[in-house]
Amino acid sequence: MSKPSPRDRLAQAAFDLFDERGYDRATVDDITERAGLGRTTFFRYYRSKEDVIFPDHDRLLALVRDRLLTSGHATTLAAVSGAVRLVLLQYLDEGDLALRRYALTSKVPALRDREIASVARYQRLFREFITEQMSDSHESGSLRAELMAAAVVAAHNHVLRRWLRGESANPVGEVDAAMRQVTGLFTAPVPADGGTAVVAFRVGQDLATLLPELQRLIGSGDGLP
Amino acid sequence: MSKPSPRDRLAQAAFDLFDERGYDRATVDDITERAGLGRTTFFRYYRSKEDVIFPDHDRLLALVRDRLLTSGHATTLAAVSGAVRLVLLQYLDEGDLALRRYALTSKVPALRDREIASVARYQRLFREFITEQMSDSHESGSLRAELMAAAVVAAHNHVLRRWLRGESANPVGEVDAAMRQVTGLFTAPVPADGGTAVVAFRVGQDLATLLPELQRLIGSGDGLP
Repeated sequence: MSKPSPRDRLAQAAFDLFDERGYDRATVDDITERAGLGRTTFFRYYRSKEDVIFPDHDRLLALVRDRLLTSGHATTLAAVSGAVRLVLLQYLDEGDLALRRYALTSKVPALRDREIASVARYQRLFREFITEQMSDSHESGSLRAELMAAAVVAAHNHVLRRWLRGESANPVGEVDAAMRQVTGLFTAPVPADGGTAVVAFRVGQDLATLLPELQRLIGSGDGLP
Repeated sequence: MSKPSPRDRLAQAAFDLFDERGYDRATVDDITERAGLGRTTFFRYYRSKEDVIFPDHDRLLALVRDRLLTSGHATTLAAVSGAVRLVLLQYLDEGDLALRRYALTSKVPALRDREIASVARYQRLFREFITEQMSDSHESGSLRAELMAAAVVAAHNHVLRRWLRGESANPVGEVDAAMRQVTGLFTAPVPADGGTAVVAFRVGQDLATLLPELQRLIGSGDGLP
C-alpha cells in the first residue's frame, strides 16, 4: 500500500474524530492534531471542516468533463455512460472512506443536504453536454436533455447507494446495465432510413388476419398472397 | 386583497431586508422588528433565518402525499402528474415571493444547496409512491421507479425554472406537456397480454422475404402461405 497523501490523512483523522466525538464536537484543530499536520496544510486542501469529508468534486467534475469531450463514443448517451462509470469507479476506489461518508451524511442533515447539492453539479454538466450534442435546440429538446441528465444521475446514484448499503457485489456491472436501461428509454424503437419498417403493436388478431392491412400500410404487396 | 398572515409578513420583511442589506447582514431580530412582530411569533413559523425564505415544504409534501393517495387516476404516472401540477400551482400562487426567492438563492450558495436538497424530498416521495404502485418488486423495478421519479422532478423543475426566468407564459400548460413527455418515455409501445405480438425492427428486406421468419418467431403459421 502506498503512503496516504496529506489530503487522505486529514480525511481519515476527521472521520476517526467524528466517529469518536460526533461531527459537531470535532474542530479543525482537533483534526490537524490527530493527523500530525498543521492548519496551513489543512486549508491547502479544504476550505472548511465540512469540506473534509467530501470527495474533491471540482477535480472529479473536471475529469468527467474531460472524458466527455474526448469521448470517441458513437452516441451521446454512450459517451455519458462512460463518464458515469468513471464517477462510480472513483467512489469504489475510495472504499472504506466512501462507506464512512455515507454513514456520516445519513446522520448529519447539513452534510446530507450538501451532498445532494453536489449531485446537481454533475447533472448540470451532463445536461449541458447532452444539449451541445443535440441538433434539436427547441424547447422540447431542452426538456429532453434535462430528462436524460436526470435519468443518468438517478441511475448512477441508485447503483452507488446499493453498493454503499452492501447490496451490490458488482456495482460496475450494475451501472452498465442501469445505463443501458436509461439509453433504452431515450432510444426510438425504429432506426433511420432503408428497408421495410415494421411498427410494434399488439392486437386481438392473428398474423394471417393482420397481413393484408400490414401490406397496405407498408405498400410492398409484391410476392405476397 | 386579504391581509397577509404573520408567516407571510415575516417572509416579506425578510426579503426586503435581504435586498437592502444582503442576506448575511440581516438578523432574526431585524426581521421581526421590520415585520412588527415578536421573536416568539417568528419561531412559531420558522426554525431559523434560513427557513424564512423557503416554502413550507412539510405542509406541501403532506398535500402532495394526500393527493397521491386519494388520486382516482388510472395510471401511476397520471396520479403523479396531478401531484406535480399541484406543486407547480403552489409556486405560481406565491407569485412575487417565488421570484424573489429565486433571485436570492441564485446569489447565496448555502441557500441554493438547501433548495436543491429540498427537491430530493419530493423525488423520494414520488419514488416511494411509484414503487408501491408497481407489481415488479425486483431490482430492475426499483431502478425504474427511481428513473421515473427523477424524470418527474426534472420535468417540474424545468418548467418552474422557465417560469421563474420569465420564459414561460403558460407554465401549467407546459408542465402538463412535460409530464406527457415523461409518461411517453415510460410507456411500453406493446401493451399487455392477448393477440399477436409484432416486434419493431427495420431490415434491408421487403415484407415478403421477411414473412417466413416472422411466422416462425411468432409460431402462428396457420392460414399463411
